[in-house]
Amino acid sequence: MLDDAYFMRQALAEARKAFEEEEVPVGAVVVINNRIIARAHNLTETLTDVTAHAEMQAITAAANVLGGKYLSDCTLYVTVEPCPMCAAALRWAQISRIVYGAKDPKRGYSGFSPDLLHPRTKVFAGILADECAELMTSFFERRR
Amino acid sequence: MLDDAYFMRQALAEARKAFEEEEVPVGAVVVINNRIIARAHNLTETLTDVTAHAEMQAITAAANVLGGKYLSDCTLYVTVEPCPMCAAALRWAQISRIVYGAKDPKRGYSGFSPDLLHPRTKVFAGILADECAELMTSFFERRR
Repeated sequence: MLDDAYFMRQALAEARKAFEEEEVPVGAVVVINNRIIARAHNLTETLTDVTAHAEMQAITAAANVLGGKYLSDCTLYVTVEPCPMCAAALRWAQISRIVYGAKDPKRGYSGFSPDLLHPRTKVFAGILADECAELMTSFFERRR
Repeated sequence: MLDDAYFMRQALAEARKAFEEEEVPVGAVVVINNRIIARAHNLTETLTDVTAHAEMQAITAAANVLGGKYLSDCTLYVTVEPCPMCAAALRWAQISRIVYGAKDPKRGYSGFSPDLLHPRTKVFAGILADECAELMTSFFERRR
């Protein structure tokens, strides 16, 4: 069954790649009609580029696949609540649905303004939240 | 004299390139120690990528030149008030100073939350605002 948990596990697999590359472990996939069209993980250190969040790369990759800049029929699965940069990018992309795992009380978009997202975008939070959060916690514990 | 107006004219030159390419005419340059290290203009249509705003490309290009992801000693000059995506990216980059031309009451970051920027980032608005705004107005008039 290709449900939200299935696609979140794919995003988690991306997050684990980030972890292994000593990047903050966030992973994302973009899905249209039950098909994954983009997979990405955070690469800010590798690319020395603050804009290289998993979501940003996933948006760019999905638009390339679709041949258009709007992701109106797509769902983004991401292991951690998007930051304001990624939320606003997802607004520009007019994405239909966002499913995220762990909350990010400090850097998540919802702590700034829920209006950062497009008014028509539906948000589902908490899918595999514990696994997503544990990956982040163990990453930051290891770096201390 | 290399003052704010000088660098904004360089950003305006980038915006005019966007205009000629039928892109929303926004241009940006990044400056460190009176030297331009990145020039960019909006390329969202050309690249079919909502993330290809002038500021985003300028951040990535400047970080490449500096070899590090933080732009703590840099000033970004941009012809129009940054949107929330770009403001939040500039926060991640910890940019020292932002100088922008025209206000964007509808899509500018300040209409969402001024906290989108880094608390230490200084903002100067209104440099060559009329020229920057006129370029936008004539672009959208032409498309009607």
